[in-house]
This record gives sequence, structure tokens and C-alpha cells, in this order.
Amino acid sequence: MSTSETGRDIPVVYDLSPEATIDDVEEDTPYLGRVNGVVDYGVFVDLSDAVSGLVHESTLGEASYDVGDELVVELDRIRDDGDVGFRPADLAEYDVVTEGEGSTEEHPAVRTDELDDHAGDTVRLAGEVVQVNQTGGPTVFGVRDGAGVVPCAAFEAAGVRAYPEVELGDPVSVTGTVEHRDGAVQVEVGDLRVLDGEEADELRADLEDALAERARPHDVDPLVEWPVLDDMWEDLREVARVVREAVLEGRPIRVRHHADGDGMCAAVPIERAVERFVAEHYADPDAPRHLFKRLPSKAPFYEMEDATRDLNFALGDRARHGQRLPLVLMLDNGSTEEDVPAYETLAAYDIPVVTVDHHHPDPEAVDPYLDAHVNPYLHGEDYRVTTGMLCVEIARMIDPSITEDVRHLPAIGGVADRSEAEAMDDYVDLAAEEGYDAEDLQDVSEALDYAAFHLRYDDGRHLLNDLLNVGCDDEERHRDLVAFMAEQSRAAVDRQRDAVGAHVEGERLDNGARLYRVDVENHAYRFTYPAPGKTTGSIHDRKVEETGDPVITIGYGPDFAVLRSDGVRLDIPRMVSELEDGIVGGGVSGGGHLVVGSIKFLPGRREEVIDALVEKMADAEIDEDLGSTSTAPLED
Amino acid sequence: MSTSETGRDIPVVYDLSPEATIDDVEEDTPYLGRVNGVVDYGVFVDLSDAVSGLVHESTLGEASYDVGDELVVELDRIRDDGDVGFRPADLAEYDVVTEGEGSTEEHPAVRTDELDDHAGDTVRLAGEVVQVNQTGGPTVFGVRDGAGVVPCAAFEAAGVRAYPEVELGDPVSVTGTVEHRDGAVQVEVGDLRVLDGEEADELRADLEDALAERARPHDVDPLVEWPVLDDMWEDLREVARVVREAVLEGRPIRVRHHADGDGMCAAVPIERAVERFVAEHYADPDAPRHLFKRLPSKAPFYEMEDATRDLNFALGDRARHGQRLPLVLMLDNGSTEEDVPAYETLAAYDIPVVTVDHHHPDPEAVDPYLDAHVNPYLHGEDYRVTTGMLCVEIARMIDPSITEDVRHLPAIGGVADRSEAEAMDDYVDLAAEEGYDAEDLQDVSEALDYAAFHLRYDDGRHLLNDLLNVGCDDEERHRDLVAFMAEQSRAAVDRQRDAVGAHVEGERLDNGARLYRVDVENHAYRFTYPAPGKTTGSIHDRKVEETGDPVITIGYGPDFAVLRSDGVRLDIPRMVSELEDGIVGGGVSGGGHLVVGSIKFLPGRREEVIDALVEKMADAEIDEDLGSTSTAPLED
Amino acid sequence: MSTSETGRDIPVVYDLSPEATIDDVEEDTPYLGRVNGVVDYGVFVDLSDAVSGLVHESTLGEASYDVGDELVVELDRIRDDGDVGFRPADLAEYDVVTEGEGSTEEHPAVRTDELDDHAGDTVRLAGEVVQVNQTGGPTVFGVRDGAGVVPCAAFEAAGVRAYPEVELGDPVSVTGTVEHRDGAVQVEVGDLRVLDGEEADELRADLEDALAERARPHDVDPLVEWPVLDDMWEDLREVARVVREAVLEGRPIRVRHHADGDGMCAAVPIERAVERFVAEHYADPDAPRHLFKRLPSKAPFYEMEDATRDLNFALGDRARHGQRLPLVLMLDNGSTEEDVPAYETLAAYDIPVVTVDHHHPDPEAVDPYLDAHVNPYLHGEDYRVTTGMLCVEIARMIDPSITEDVRHLPAIGGVADRSEAEAMDDYVDLAAEEGYDAEDLQDVSEALDYAAFHLRYDDGRHLLNDLLNVGCDDEERHRDLVAFMAEQSRAAVDRQRDAVGAHVEGERLDNGARLYRVDVENHAYRFTYPAPGKTTGSIHDRKVEETGDPVITIGYGPDFAVLRSDGVRLDIPRMVSELEDGIVGGGVSGGGHLVVGSIKFLPGRREEVIDALVEKMADAEIDEDLGSTSTAPLED
Repeated sequence: MSTSETGRDIPVVYDLSPEATIDDVEEDTPYLGRVNGVVDYGVFVDLSDAVSGLVHESTLGEASYDVGDELVVELDRIRDDGDVGFRPADLAEYDVVTEGEGSTEEHPAVRTDELDDHAGDTVRLAGEVVQVNQTGGPTVFGVRDGAGVVPCAAFEAAGVRAYPEVELGDPVSVTGTVEHRDGAVQVEVGDLRVLDGEEADELRADLEDALAERARPHDVDPLVEWPVLDDMWEDLREVARVVREAVLEGRPIRVRHHADGDGMCAAVPIERAVERFVAEHYADPDAPRHLFKRLPSKAPFYEMEDATRDLNFALGDRARHGQRLPLVLMLDNGSTEEDVPAYETLAAYDIPVVTVDHHHPDPEAVDPYLDAHVNPYLHGEDYRVTTGMLCVEIARMIDPSITEDVRHLPAIGGVADRSEAEAMDDYVDLAAEEGYDAEDLQDVSEALDYAAFHLRYDDGRHLLNDLLNVGCDDEERHRDLVAFMAEQSRAAVDRQRDAVGAHVEGERLDNGARLYRVDVENHAYRFTYPAPGKTTGSIHDRKVEETGDPVITIGYGPDFAVLRSDGVRLDIPRMVSELEDGIVGGGVSGGGHLVVGSIKFLPGRREEVIDALVEKMADAEIDEDLGSTSTAPLED
Repeated sequence: MSTSETGRDIPVVYDLSPEATIDDVEEDTPYLGRVNGVVDYGVFVDLSDAVSGLVHESTLGEASYDVGDELVVELDRIRDDGDVGFRPADLAEYDVVTEGEGSTEEHPAVRTDELDDHAGDTVRLAGEVVQVNQTGGPTVFGVRDGAGVVPCAAFEAAGVRAYPEVELGDPVSVTGTVEHRDGAVQVEVGDLRVLDGEEADELRADLEDALAERARPHDVDPLVEWPVLDDMWEDLREVARVVREAVLEGRPIRVRHHADGDGMCAAVPIERAVERFVAEHYADPDAPRHLFKRLPSKAPFYEMEDATRDLNFALGDRARHGQRLPLVLMLDNGSTEEDVPAYETLAAYDIPVVTVDHHHPDPEAVDPYLDAHVNPYLHGEDYRVTTGMLCVEIARMIDPSITEDVRHLPAIGGVADRSEAEAMDDYVDLAAEEGYDAEDLQDVSEALDYAAFHLRYDDGRHLLNDLLNVGCDDEERHRDLVAFMAEQSRAAVDRQRDAVGAHVEGERLDNGARLYRVDVENHAYRFTYPAPGKTTGSIHDRKVEETGDPVITIGYGPDFAVLRSDGVRLDIPRMVSELEDGIVGGGVSGGGHLVVGSIKFLPGRREEVIDALVEKMADAEIDEDLGSTSTAPLED
Repeated sequence: MSTSETGRDIPVVYDLSPEATIDDVEEDTPYLGRVNGVVDYGVFVDLSDAVSGLVHESTLGEASYDVGDELVVELDRIRDDGDVGFRPADLAEYDVVTEGEGSTEEHPAVRTDELDDHAGDTVRLAGEVVQVNQTGGPTVFGVRDGAGVVPCAAFEAAGVRAYPEVELGDPVSVTGTVEHRDGAVQVEVGDLRVLDGEEADELRADLEDALAERARPHDVDPLVEWPVLDDMWEDLREVARVVREAVLEGRPIRVRHHADGDGMCAAVPIERAVERFVAEHYADPDAPRHLFKRLPSKAPFYEMEDATRDLNFALGDRARHGQRLPLVLMLDNGSTEEDVPAYETLAAYDIPVVTVDHHHPDPEAVDPYLDAHVNPYLHGEDYRVTTGMLCVEIARMIDPSITEDVRHLPAIGGVADRSEAEAMDDYVDLAAEEGYDAEDLQDVSEALDYAAFHLRYDDGRHLLNDLLNVGCDDEERHRDLVAFMAEQSRAAVDRQRDAVGAHVEGERLDNGARLYRVDVENHAYRFTYPAPGKTTGSIHDRKVEETGDPVITIGYGPDFAVLRSDGVRLDIPRMVSELEDGIVGGGVSGGGHLVVGSIKFLPGRREEVIDALVEKMADAEIDEDLGSTSTAPLED
């Protein structure tokens, strides 16, 4: 009550602040409302952004109202379903008192993981905006605090962006009602305010602490005791941390992995661990699918086409669903200069990239673009430490509960990559504990090759899980699939070798090695399994076995050659570099190791290139201990 | 009432069994409830799994409650929308009597096709689980009884699997409330229980009987009188039965068909019949799209890539929507040894496969993998009985109402495959009744070729329907399309033949036949219509016409040759097998008939292979009655 | 009241017409209802198609009712949420009076843009049906009047087509209740009636007037003063009108544009303008995505594969969402005879096509298929008037608010196409005002080439917007991206030229010109950027620079050659036509201008074709003013 100039008591009418909610409305108290809708059975009035209700026609008398009119009302009732009814307050004159922010009752501040206990309540929430999804109805803000992410729906008008000033990454305070929608908890926004100054700083600091805390990888013991892993442990932890952080921040993860056995043994455990971690953190059962995508790369590097496609996809998701740009995770791939154009494209958008690879790296070229780069060569080790061995540990740091599912994978990846790492025996023992003997590991590796070829650009999620026995619900099906595909693979390789075999040309080099050349394009089945790399390998292995001598095999096509050696020290990178300079217009490029490699050239210079190559090979040193049967495989 | 030890009457409070529903709740009767939510305007109490309601704060007095507290309540009212209100029962002391399953009123047992009459009622339903779809809210079980499939929604928590023990294929009893959601009927699950023992056996037997009854194909008379059809009738019925059964069981159907005229005349009627049958059986208008997919196969066999893709797709649908794995239906394709790797892949997942084909089959190779295999060769007939002739009958057995739409298709498929079956005249007469004269049939066949080439891997559903006049709503558009595409096709074939014509090399063989060879890769337009098979055919037909002599034509590319003969008995399968053995490293494979075929070889052995082939042809027997103009077409 | 034969007053019971709505129902008035549902807590009765409500069991007494029974009721109450309750009217005898259309209160006729003010009201709406979308629940009709399009939901039964007689394009009158669903306004249909006769004619005339009015392009001034634009202005306005009309009619727009710099500078402004116009006209925020699709075309004409795919897509959308068939808009493409087969395919479905192109047109071939054809050649101009220059004006006529975003695009398109149009200087000045100097324009053009190659068939929407700085929200990212991609592009071109350079064969022709030939397939990197056209161009430019003489360069592959001249008048179209006739089985085709062009031939005739070509070139006239560095670019 206030008192009028004439001394009479003049009733006070409250004009609620826009942030007020239904909890601020008290019975027997007059409030100033504004008509926002006129219907047959009454008028709807707004008391604040969040408080709205019907004044039933039966209480309105003869008066008629238009949208925009002011009307003093009192609370009539709150229905069980939350709908609010008002009745006109019959006041001849009154004073209006604005209920500012100060007078608004403070709503309880809650964390996202406490919302379930506050269904129906109006609460206050502080966090960072991690998604802004404009739907046909409300604008849905994903708000992350230290405990999780919750959708906050704000309605301005159908399909109209609410709070257009609020952007991804803003620190905000949300006041609203806790609801269940399609069963999942969400907040219906009464008010949403971008924090600034000290408040913002405090929130950011809190969130950063909470994020750092929650992103911290699990402490696990390595699957095997191996000093190499100890040396690289902190690098692996950093990758696990970055991945967990991305999940917690609502940032999607896009894995690009080499489409071979080791690449799959690296990517599948990460996929499994991340999906579990996402499921634990997000109520939405579709979240793992929205936040994680695994894509095989056919080339042994990140092709511009793939990077362009990934970028397009990410920009589209951002535009359509307000999602953050992704973290790109390169597995068994991504360490070399050839990856730079792709990385540079992503860098223009500040897309973070993390690489775990065991191919010979060009750290000077790639590291400027990488948030983390794990590679055994950076620790004085080499390709024998497979990517699968490393990624299984990263996956366990992300979610240790997957350990039982993936203990046999390092051995499979190792066999696929013909690794002779010291720890291979231990890994093989681990696999044996899971029921895989040496032959089984070979079979799985062979079956993976066969499946990868036929899957092409498909991630083949379920098929791979069944082949690798990761979350496969039917052990017998796993065994059947592996047996059948390994057998198909071997039959196809035999058939290809038989076809090509008749066309292998052999000679003795000056250094005593046997050299075999074969045209794997004209004398092999085309567009069919196995591809030229594996075909050449199978010829080579056979020749090594048959002759017992030092053997070099060259499988060539119109613009490429695949090289394998046993017993001859080739140093292929040096040879490539000499050919690059020596043959004008040859367009020679390529790479590899001492005894295995591949080169590309321009079709018109094939003869010259191969002749020059053979000349160099004839000068190469014999070293009976060297063998390509125990080295990283060829890229097809 | 019960009596206390002191002799006073102590009121009885009922503790409902978890299966109890709102129909078990009577007025003026106290029940034991448990608080499961506290809101501003009261508390929610659970009386059973399915019975829950609000106790309004106005009735609660001063008492305060927490989640988990017990509270004795009486029914206050049931609102029109089904929401239930309770009020506290003011009892100082009471005895609790548990209302077990025995005392629960039995709800009426209903069938899925009676649910519409029970809106709002609590009912009991028994059936088999055919889908388990975890949504962001409830878990939705598709439950099939003898009459249909109904979605049953069970809510445990947002996105949490309800009744995790219930799996696809389980026999269950569902108690719940019949509702309409988005207009479609569904059951909101109060209780869901896996049946076992006798109950399960009985249900299974009932379902099996009902399924057998409903899956039984319609009795139709063949479109034409033809003993061949009579011989194969039971085989055709079995395919129709398997297809109907799949639909009734909620199993998707994936058709892989040869992408040529006959293949399309086989697959399109099946598509139409299944879609109608699905629409009749499922309320969801999207069901036909979810349950049926037709895919053209470019290769004349089921490629591993296609099978891998199909498998991936199916496993993904199973994981995402809890759908069954599909029935694969191979049409005009799938009878040969080359299909085995694909079949073996599907077999690992127990995916049923049914094949209807008229290519020369290898039953020993494929039958172990097939649930049904229809092929005229298995009845002493041959390719002249086209797949279209067979599938139109199968489609009519699935849904006879399509008959009017497809009566002209066997004639089109027959013309496309140059069939000289005895029944062709009758089929042509049937087509004539629909307004198609001989020239029209040729036009449609030609237009199909043209469309199939440009559709590539797309099913081209609507375009094909318009070209084939199956459900086309505009006869004139059909006529226009056919005329235009047939004309385009012929113009392109003429242009191609003119280009190639200048490069045809002719010679006389020892047996007097004329042999023509042409390089259809170097002397024809590439990557454009028509493909090499049709190009060779057009050259051949022209030469036959021009010379009147016995003619053989070989159209070759780098690693393939297409063969056609008129007047010379080639027995191509034998020739291929001889070349396979005779030319080391030639990699020869292929197949065909007496006067038509295609072979593949390794590019490096082309000259030798073709020379050897011509040598054999020079020894072949002249038989003026044989003509490739009246045989199955080449696969491109 | 009426009076009975015995003189007593007999009460009147009203039988409402099926069109009646709740507003027709008055209190204390008995109505004839029919039971349409029996539930535990009462019966539901229908008074008309739109009026239905519950008679609560508490008011029903002992009587029991079945579906279909008649029951006389009075209004009990209308709940706040719109649910209606009735109570039985206790009448011993009564007369039934049918309330026909005449007696039904007339509901207010409203326009679609007034619906927001009528939430909850029953209204009448007249318009044309522009979409018929059968959902799992209601059938949703898109109804367009002069002011907009509104969804009208009619429910017959779950997934059952309501008003099956109503088709796309019908003039209708809708009576129904205005609702918000997911925030967007829609009408719940009480009655929907196809208009005929005079009513229909009037509506059509009104709609046509309104459409004509609203489709009228904005009046804008050309970006530069240029008589050429004045000549073509009405043509450009017509395209803008057709596009606006399509949007207003709910017809999707499908743009096929040349995938090069000028093509993108033409298509992107149109995309932006249309999307804004759609967003302004449709409440659904997804509408721009549903109504506009931009697709790059790799070939320099509308390939049959693309047209077939577009048609399939459109037919699918029509079937699934009841959408109209699209308007196809060909940009920087579509003027030549090679487009005719594609156009003819679309014509069978009456799909309208509009072409804006600056390539040399065959108006006689294409115009019969086009609703509009803008081309500078039709106005005595040539390719120097780029498509981008034209389309920027069209886009501004569609929505002038985009002007600021696109003022620099004509200069970029012009540079990309090496245009020497008189207005180029003015366009370059405009770009300079936006901060682009000559070098910047070259950079953007180069970056576009690079991006287009790697995007392949993707529209690359966001990447292109950032490259072109159209709606790019980060100027620095735009600059970075352009700089990086331009640099990558130049490095790749240099690498390619270096590789190829060693294989260029030079000679002096009789006319004194220098001729260079190079095999760009065997001596260039394959499947990598740049493609043969650009590779040849880079060789040529270098030779022109080095020699200062008249230079012709031929870059050839197995079945194509790319031609460039500086200082020699080639008249390539004439040469192609002579070769076509002169070389039997050569399959020569192609096109171009005086100094730039490309030809195709059959691989087996390559040598002859190129030799004959060179012979003609040796006879060609020297004209030092002619230069391919200032002409339309080659198609790769």
C-alpha cells in the first residue's frame, strides 16, 4: 500500500521485472499485466517474460481488450499442469511499483546434474553456451557447467532466434523451469543473460577448473610392461585429455584413420571408449552418433578432397545445429608433409588436429598445425611400435571399462603391420589369453584386409566390431566371419598371384640379389581384391621362400611402383630423392623404409624411372638380416 | 477391514502389485503410495508401475514429503485427459494387504486389430517382439500378434532401455493403456513380461499358425496358360509366401536386381505388391519405405562390395532402430558361383536369401545359401522363360490387386531379353490388350536401357514407374517419355555404331562364317551410352542383316570381349574353360550360351586370348537356325 | 421451440451441419450428437466434423451407449485448453432442426498474414493448395493466398489421406481453428472444400493478381552504368520474376551451375537472395533448405545423368512431401545443343527451365524448352559479358538487401573468365571500394579454381561463402583462406607445368606461328589438381611470355585435346566441323571460339585427328591482336 496525496491508502500494483518467474507471483497481490492474446474464452496476459496466463472471460465482465492493453490482475489459480489463471483486480486507482532484479526472489542455483530433483521448479544455472540450435519453435541453447550439458529452450517466436546476442562460448546465467521433454530433462528459459566482468571471469575460472578436473584421463597401467610406452605415456595421456575435453565441451570428434589392419585396431578402441564416455555424459541417446564419426582414409595421407569434405560437413553442422567445429583425430596417418595442405585448410577455421601415427614423420612440416603429435620416431623408436598399441592405451585412459574388449587388438595390429617390436611377444600372450593363437591373429589380419577393400569409404562399424570381436554379441559369428573372410582373402591372393606369376621377369643383379619385375596392372585382375601392393607382396614372399637368396621385387603400373626387398639395403627415400633430381619430367615422388616403399612417376617416363631404379638397386648393399616380411606394410 | 489385537476394526490399506493399472484402483479405498517426485504444487505418488498421480498441496496440510516416502492415499479424481489425482487418506493405523497378481482384475485380452475400439482402456496383449527401438524418451517395442504389429512404449528413464531383458523374438505379455499418438494407435506399457514354459509355447504355436495363415499367398490364375508356369507354380508360391511372411514379421526386404529391362520388369511388380501389402498391414505410412528397398546391380552377379554395403546398412538399422535383419531377394541375378562370396558374408549373420533368376545356374554352389531358388533351368527350361514372367506372378500372389497394373510387363521383359518362349505370343497379346503393339514394346525396352544407363545406382523409382506405366497417373507422360527416350537411345546407338563401324575388321573363317572384330574401347565413345555390350550387339545385328551369312562378332576392350553369333554354334562356356586352361597367366573367365557370351582376361594377354578364341570359332559348327538375335542379351 | 400437433411446445434440437465449429455452439441449447467413442469415464460425442467433446460418466446416469448412438446434449463447459464438455439434455421429446450452411454463423475470412492475431479462433481462409503432405497423423495441406502459405492439418485417421479429392493446385476454402504447433502457426481444419464455378474463378483471379504483384522484381539501378545491361535489363527482370514467383508458389528451385569461378560468382548471389526471400515469406526456418538447392555441374553442359538425378530427386520429394516439381535454373551453362536431351527429359514432366549463360548459344535448339533464356549473344554481345555480371543484378532484383554482400563478385567472375568487357574497369573499381585490388581478384579467382576441384560434386556452401566473402562473418578468415588456397593452387600449377614442361614438343608452322604439343595424360600428374585444361593453359601462357611470337598450344589426352592460341585466328568451331566430316570413325566433336577450344575424338584416331588439326592450324591467319589470355577459359 502507498498513500495518495489525499491521504487515502492507494493500493500498490507490482510491475514484475522481465526475469520474474511464477515463483515470484504471490496470491492476493495485484500485478500489472499486458494483453498478448485475445481468444474466445478470455485474454492471455504477460506479467514478465516467463509469467503468462489466462484471464477467463467469465471474470472479465463487459470490458473488451486488445493485444497490448494493460490489465491489473491477481493470481486465480495454478493448474496441476502448470497453466496459470488470473482474474482482474478490481482497483479504481493504484500505484505501480516495479519489481526490479533486486526484489526478485533468488532462485536456487543448481548444477546440471541436480536438475532431475528440481522438476517443475524454477532454478538458476550458470555455464558456457556450447550449442545454439534454432528449431522451428524455440532456440535451444546447450549450456555446459562443471557437471554436464543441458538444453535450455528459449522461445521468442516460431523459428526466430531468441537472445540473438548470445553466441557459442558465451558465459551465461539462465533462469528457467526444469521440465522433461520427450523424457529428457531441459530448462524452459525464463531469462538468459550473458555474464561479464567479474562474474564472467569467475564462471570461466570455475568451468576451466571443472573441465580440467573432468577431462583428466583415467590412471591405467599399460597392458604390457614396456619402457617404450613409459617414454610415450605423457604424450598418450595428453591425447586422451584432449579427446575427453572435446566431449565435455560438446565439440564433435572426427577420426580419419588409415584403412588397414593397424589403422582399424587403432581407431576402433577409440571409437568405443569415446562413445561410452559420451553416453555417460549426455542424456540424449543419439549424442554418440552426433559427437563421433570415424572415417577410413584410402590414401596414406590426409587428402585435400577428404579435408574439404570434412570441413564442409562441419560448417554445415555448425550452421544447421549450432554445433562447434570438430576436433580432427588422425590415426595411423597424418605425420607427413603430404598432410600439410589439408591441415592448412582446417587451420583457417581454427579446427584443432591431433595425430597419432607411426609412419616416418616430418615434424617440422606438420607440428605447427597439430595440437598434439604422438609418434614413436619422436622418441627414437620406429614403425614397429604400431598405432594400435598406442591407441589402445589412449582408449583405456578415456574409459578404462573397455579394457576387456580390446586387449587382443595390439597383437592383431602388430601382426597386420608385421611388427617385430620387443613387446610383440607380450601382446601375443595377451591375445592368447583371449583365445587367439598365432594363426588366429593372422586370420583376423587377413580378414581385415579383405573387409577394408570391400568397405571402401564406409566405416563398416558393425562389421568391423564383429571381425575384431569388440562388443560383438556372438562369439561364434565372429569366428565364422573371420574364418570365411580370411579364406576368401587367401584364395583371391592365390588367384591373383597365379595370374601374375606367369609374367614375372627375373634377373640377377651385380650385387648378387635376384630382381623380379612384374606389371601388376596389365597382368593382374583389375578393380578387384587384392590391390597392387598386396599382390606384389605375395609375389615377393613366394620368391623369398623359393630362392632363399636376397630378393627385390618391383610391382609396377602405369604411374606407380611398389618395392619390396629381403636381404638388400635399399634406402628407398634416398633413391626417390635421387630419381626426383635425375629424371627431368619424371615427376618422381614416394617414400618408404630400407626394404619397403612405393614410388609414383609420370606415365610417360615409366621405363626410364624403373631402369634407373634397378641400376641403383644393383649397387645396393647386401644385408641378409634385413627383411621386408618384418616391416611396415605397403600402402596400396 | 481387519481386526486389531485389541478388537478394534483396523482399516486395510492395499499395496497394489506392480502390474496393477488404474482400473484396479477403486474409489473410497486407501492405497499405499510411494513419493516419486516433489513439486511446488504437491507430490507425485506411485501406486504401481503404471499407476501414478498427483496429491495436490492443498490436501497435504503441513506435512512435508521426500522422494521415497510412503503415503496412504485415496483416489480423488481422474481427469478427462487421464491424469489421476489422489488425496491423503487420514488413517491413524492400518494394515497393509498386498494385492498380488491373483487379486488383480484381469484386463481384457485384445488383438492388435481391436485396439482402436479400446482407446483409453487398459488391455492385455500377447505377441512376439519384432522391434526394439530405443528413443530419447521411452523404449518402443514392436509387438506382433496374429493380427498385426503395434508399438508398445515403455518408459524407464529418458533414453534408458526399459525391460533390458526383453529381446527381439521374445514372446511377451503386455499390459497397458491404449493411446493415440500422432494419430496412430499405441500401447503405453504398464507391464511387460517375457512368457516362458507352456504359456510361451502356446503363444508361439498360435503366432505360427496365424502367421502361416496370413502369409499364405493369394490363389491367382496365371496370366497366360502355359505348362511351364504350372511346373514352377509351387516354387513361385513359396517365394510369395516367404516375402509375405517377412512383411508380417516386420523383417525388411532388400531387393537386388539386374539393372536391365527384364530385371526391372521383375523387380517393379514385386515392389508394388509388397508396398501395398505393407501399407495394408502397418498403420505407419512410412512403413513401406522402411520395409522395402530395391537396388539395381550393375554387375551380372552379387558383388562383394554390394553385399558388404547391404550388410552394413542392415546392421546399422538394427542398431539404430532395433529392426530385424532383412530378407535379401535376388531378381534376374544371383544363380551363379560368382554370387557365393556375397552369400557367404550374409550367411554369417543368418540373413535369408531368396533368388529368382533365369540365368544358367550353379545350384550346387548357391543352393546351400538360399532359402528358395526359382530358375527355369531347374525345371528343364531355359533363359527364354524370363524373370519378369515369373515375378509378375509372384507379385500377384502377394497382392492380386496389382494385376491390372502389370499385365503388360512380361511382354516388355521378354522383348528386352529377346525371349522366344512359347508363351511370348500370349504375353504380347496381353500387352496388346493394354494398348501396346510390337513397336511399343520395343520402344519401352529401348527406353529402359537408356534410363538404366543414366540412373546408374539409383533405383529411379518414379521414373521407372512412369516408363513402365505402373501406377503412372498420366498416360500421356508415359507415352511421351517412352517415345523420347527410345528415340534418344536409338540415336546414340546409331552414332556409336557409325563411329565404331569404320574400325570393324572382317575375315572369312575356315567354316565359312564371317568374323568381325572391333575395339570398342579405342574406337567407341567412352563413358557414354551405349556401353560396349550393346555397341557390339548393334554392329553384329547390322552385319547379319547386310550379309545374310553366318556371322560372329567380337567387341573387345583392354580386358574383356563381348561375343555374338548368328548361324555358328559356339558353346562359349566350353571355349572359356579351354582358354582358362590353355593360356597361362591369361586369367580368362566368363560365360554365356551357345551364341552369346562375354569373357574377361588380363590386359597383357589380350592378343593371345582373342587369337585362340578365333581359332576355336573357325572350328565351330555352322547351324543356320541358331541366332543371337533371339537369345538372352549380353551383360555390359 | 416448435409447437406439437397437440399444441404443446416441443423443444427443438439442433443438428449441426458438418461444417459447424465450436463457435456455432451456444449455451443452454440442445444439440444432436453421435457417440464416436466410449471410455471408462464417459462417452465422446460428435456434433459436427469439427465439434466433439466428452460427456462425463457422472452426468450419464444408468444409460449405456455404444459407438454410433445418438444423444442429445448441451454445452457443459469449454476448458481453457479448448477441450469441450457436454452434458445430456433431458428431453422426453423434441424436434430436430438441421442447421445448414445457411444458418451457420459465418466465420471471419482472414488472410494468412493475419492468422497470428486469431490464435484460438475459428476462421475461414481461401487459397490454392501448394503442398499435400501425408504425415503419420494428419494430412497437411499447404494453402497459399495472396499473402503467404500456411499449413492446414486435416485428420481423417492415422496416416490416412484426408480429403482425397483435393489435389495440388486446387482452389479451396478452409474453415478451421488457428493454432500454434511447435511455435508455428497452423490451421486445424474443420472443413476443407474445393471451390468451383465463379467462386473458383474469382479466387484464381485474385491469387493471380496478388502473385503478379508480389512476384514483381524490385526496381534496382545497375551496379555500373553500361548500355549492355540496359539492353538486357528486361530479360534479367523476367528471370527475377520467375524465381520470385516460384518461391511464392511453393515451387522448389534447383540451380545447376558451371563449377568454375564465373559460375560460382553467378550462383552464389542468387542463392543468397533466394534464401532471404524464402525466409521472409515462410515461417518454417527449414524452408530455405527445402526450397533451394545449388549443384555444381562438372561438364560444360547439362548431362543426362545429372538431369536424371534431378528428376528422380524431384519426383521423390513430390511423392514423400507432396512438393511441387522444381524450377530448374541453369547458370553459366545450358545454352547449347548438348543440353537438349536433359531438357527433353524434364519437359516430359513440365518442369520449367530458365537459363542464364554467356557461352555461345544454340537458341534454335534450346529455346523451345526454356521459359526464359538470357544470353549476351542474343543481344549481339559475347562471352565477355560474364554470367556473374548478369546474375548479380538478378539477385539484387530478387532481394536488393544483398547488394553490399555481392558488389565485388562481377569483378571476380570477370577475372576468372579473363573478361575484357568494357565494364570490367567499373567492376574492378567497385571491387576496389570493397578492398580488393587487382592482385586480390586474381587470388580469389585462383582460390576458387582450387576449391572447386576439391569440392567435386559438393556445393561447398560455407566454404564458398567464406572464399567469396559473401556473408562471411570473419574477414580475416576470408583473407587467410584465399591467400592459402591461391598459393596452393599456384604451387600445384607450377609443379604440374614443370613435370609436363620437359615433354613439350615445339615446331614452326608455315604461317610462322609456333606450335607446341604436349601429352597431358602421360606426362602430367593424374587425378590431381590442376586438370588438363588448366595445365595446358599454364604451358601456353608461359610460351607466349617466353617467345613473344604467335603461339598455339595443344594439350592432348587419349580422347581429347585442349587448344589455345595467341596471335593466330583458329576459328575452332569450323575446324571441328571439318574434322567431323573429314575423318571417318574419328568421332570428332567439340567447340570453342577463335583462339580457345576443346575437342573430343575416339582414342583410336588420335594421331590422325591431331595431325589434321595441325595442318589446318598451319593455314590459319596470323592476327597479333587476338589472344586467349583475354578470353573465356577452357572447360576442363
